[in-house]
Amino acid sequence: MLSSRSLLFSRNKVLTIDTMNPKVKNVEYAVRGPIVQRAVQIEKELREGVKKPFTEVIKANIGDAHAMGQKPITFFRQVLALCSYPELLNDNMFPEDAKSRARHILQACGGSSMGAYSASQGIDCVRQDVARYIERRDGGVPCDPDNVYLTTGASDGIVTMLKLLVCGEGASKTGVMISIPQYPLYSAALAELGAVQVNYYLNEEKCWSMDLRELERSLAEARKHCNPKALCIINPGNPTGQVQSRQCIEDVIRFAAKERLFLMADEVYQDNVYAEGCQFHSFKKVLFELGPQYSNTVELASFHSTSKCYMGECGFRGGYMEVINMDPEVKAQLTKLVSVRLCPPVPGQALMDLVVNSPQPGEPSYTTFMKERTATLSLLAEKAKLTEEILNTVPGITCNPVQGAMYSFPNISLPQKAIKDAKALGQAPDMFYCMKMLEETGICLVPGSGFGQKDGTYHFRMTILPPTDKLKILLAKVNEFHQKFTQQYS
Amino acid sequence: MLSSRSLLFSRNKVLTIDTMNPKVKNVEYAVRGPIVQRAVQIEKELREGVKKPFTEVIKANIGDAHAMGQKPITFFRQVLALCSYPELLNDNMFPEDAKSRARHILQACGGSSMGAYSASQGIDCVRQDVARYIERRDGGVPCDPDNVYLTTGASDGIVTMLKLLVCGEGASKTGVMISIPQYPLYSAALAELGAVQVNYYLNEEKCWSMDLRELERSLAEARKHCNPKALCIINPGNPTGQVQSRQCIEDVIRFAAKERLFLMADEVYQDNVYAEGCQFHSFKKVLFELGPQYSNTVELASFHSTSKCYMGECGFRGGYMEVINMDPEVKAQLTKLVSVRLCPPVPGQALMDLVVNSPQPGEPSYTTFMKERTATLSLLAEKAKLTEEILNTVPGITCNPVQGAMYSFPNISLPQKAIKDAKALGQAPDMFYCMKMLEETGICLVPGSGFGQKDGTYHFRMTILPPTDKLKILLAKVNEFHQKFTQQYS
Ligand SMILES: Cc1ncc(COP(=O)(O)O)c(C=O)c1O
Ligand SMILES: Cc1ncc(COP(=O)(O)O)c(C=O)c1O
Repeated sequence: MLSSRSLLFSRNKVLTIDTMNPKVKNVEYAVRGPIVQRAVQIEKELREGVKKPFTEVIKANIGDAHAMGQKPITFFRQVLALCSYPELLNDNMFPEDAKSRARHILQACGGSSMGAYSASQGIDCVRQDVARYIERRDGGVPCDPDNVYLTTGASDGIVTMLKLLVCGEGASKTGVMISIPQYPLYSAALAELGAVQVNYYLNEEKCWSMDLRELERSLAEARKHCNPKALCIINPGNPTGQVQSRQCIEDVIRFAAKERLFLMADEVYQDNVYAEGCQFHSFKKVLFELGPQYSNTVELASFHSTSKCYMGECGFRGGYMEVINMDPEVKAQLTKLVSVRLCPPVPGQALMDLVVNSPQPGEPSYTTFMKERTATLSLLAEKAKLTEEILNTVPGITCNPVQGAMYSFPNISLPQKAIKDAKALGQAPDMFYCMKMLEETGICLVPGSGFGQKDGTYHFRMTILPPTDKLKILLAKVNEFHQKFTQQYS
Repeated sequence: MLSSRSLLFSRNKVLTIDTMNPKVKNVEYAVRGPIVQRAVQIEKELREGVKKPFTEVIKANIGDAHAMGQKPITFFRQVLALCSYPELLNDNMFPEDAKSRARHILQACGGSSMGAYSASQGIDCVRQDVARYIERRDGGVPCDPDNVYLTTGASDGIVTMLKLLVCGEGASKTGVMISIPQYPLYSAALAELGAVQVNYYLNEEKCWSMDLRELERSLAEARKHCNPKALCIINPGNPTGQVQSRQCIEDVIRFAAKERLFLMADEVYQDNVYAEGCQFHSFKKVLFELGPQYSNTVELASFHSTSKCYMGECGFRGGYMEVINMDPEVKAQLTKLVSVRLCPPVPGQALMDLVVNSPQPGEPSYTTFMKERTATLSLLAEKAKLTEEILNTVPGITCNPVQGAMYSFPNISLPQKAIKDAKALGQAPDMFYCMKMLEETGICLVPGSGFGQKDGTYHFRMTILPPTDKLKILLAKVNEFHQKFTQQYS
């Protein structure tokens, strides 16, 4: 209830909820939504001594590896320290390869300082290193550094590409196909841009794979009311943790070629592949393997980031995108557009360089680097397995294997009464469930409704990032909570 | 001319200049425009041995201090190195205050790592430090850390605020008043958002001050065809280098209150004040000094950055904005909006913290810090004076004093024949002039037309950042070129 005084003030304001940009109002972002805000509050209450049925909040809501205890790669941080304070180059405390990487980066910075703006597209030598990395990764498929744009995290690249694509009004408004479940950056960006979100559903029965027939259905329906121009894929998947097969990627590329869709491949989890028999195939590589009628025509933008994989350096906001077969005039527009924000953060660019130009056999830091990298990825693989196994023992919870990325997205059956109670409160049933779980157990998950799901199904997303001991506690608590919840509402 | 083959491919593309977002096409950004691209090419040609009437390109086109040789503040970089590689905390090579700042920042990061995502609004303790800085700066006017948002450079904050403000179509489309000449981020962001740019002219005769009557004229005209909601001020000014008087700021605030305009104060040059008798007055401080009928009602967002002042750390992309009297519902929307991009770069946040929480008397780094800070600012003051003095000796060039910021924006008289020749080429006359200057002397300036200017007047913007010896060469060459150019076209 507003007092008359605040009502007066509120009426006098220029910028109110009624006068603001309505597109911004339409934006939703569940990963940092109400559950997370409540979790932060609860943490504060715990610190203030409020009694709860638990003593700590365990956060499994966001793919933030360092926050969950993962350690940074020593070599990367040594080079960043050297770049930050080049005086350290005169010291003997750092290995030679760290120093030479730091010199390589600094000589490419204006005034040899990370404090200078870089070229808007990113530092030249970093883009060259990225191009060589992509060539190695893709078995020699050529990569032109001119097609590489460094970004402020992958988020920035994705939003920028969508911004280029979107236009039109009414039935000619741009439609963008995104997977459901999706990473909510996509729906948020589309809402902000006023584009049409075109949903295609991943096949939960087939381990969240993409289904050609579903793509066709989705596209045909969309064409009735908008102009679908792009198809976004997240592989390995967030929130669903699948790794798409080579065959599936091939099908998707042929589909995009036939239907004239611009492909956007979100490949930020490219090193996060755990399941036996699974392998990461980049869209670029498969595109080129399909031969020139595809590789010369299909437009593709692919995205990578320093935030995930074995490095997990989210805070640095590093990333790149590669654009393939982009119209040269559009590329010039892209370059102009990114110049308005001046440049991506240089420390993030430096970090991206280290990721694509990591210690090589024979270099002094190689052994430690490999040990750290392998340890991190093995631990993630273990936790992926553990999560899947334990969740599948819970009656009423079923989940697909976590083949890759950092998440499990289990299907939960909710009793009718719980669904009714939730709806009475105007809440999505899985939001109701997750909120109750948070209040009773201190576990912070994100409801499936934040990512999208088939009508009548319910899920939550949990990361596999908590340290193993905490992950075990978390899984035990989820088990216990789910059974109690089911009983309570049956 | 397109070959039939490329025509075919171009016809087949999904994303072309004709199908892309037309708002993006409308964006212009002169600071990194054609002149700068040509300068980069010329540098390459020089490296390849192409003979030119000069041996190096001198860039005075962008406010990029480190690129022009300014040295980073030692203390800041020590702390950043410590935060990057906390192992260094165990070493004795860094002063205690640097270590304690690093601990202060790290303890506020998830997992004590700059690699964790921060809260989207920015790290709590950094926002608190910013709030205390603002209070000190403004002589005790209170600042609530909840009103502080850390940003990816000031650019990000400015674009985000504009995004919140813009809505409507036709005659109810949002208009935003910006100074002419302006920093082209504003026009670019407004073009991208599809808002109406409402120009008000700074008074060149009165040292680029703001003129109440001109504001009234501009607003009255704008109201005929759009809905003006916000008024942007850059103080100290870019590209014009003026520092607005306290009286002028008061007038602008009263005007905004009366006309119900949201104020956006771009104060990224707040420490860059050189001229005697000039002083920086923050809009916030003046707002509060005007009393509660203003300080309780006028909506204000003010912006700061790590990129300018004595630190010049552009590459780190640090910044903050403070919002005052913002409607709580809108603030919630703002918080949601920034969460989509996850968080500003953490090293930039750390740097912002150091700027607002610099070494204090009695701390081991205080003396060196003050010496470095003072040296940098005194040198800038010297170069500001030098630039003004020399330019004013050139017949046909007149310029206002560089009271603050980092730029001179002299008025140049161009012969009629040059204007005619330029127009025949479809070029703005001052673009024609600057391009010729670049080709003949290697000096890279930005034409006034990139910032906007009164019809029939011509200017260029040059930064005062080159090292003194180069600045002198640059000014001598400008002098010589201008006279030659004038003769040639007379
Ligand atoms: C699929 C996917 N894409 C993009 C991002 C954005 O990552 P960043 O902007 O940190 O690089 C994320 C982050 O979680 C993600 O999961
Ligand atoms: C007036 C003004 N505002 C904002 C900016 C943006 O600076 P940054 O995004 O680097 O903080 C600049 C940069 O030159 C500027 O001159």
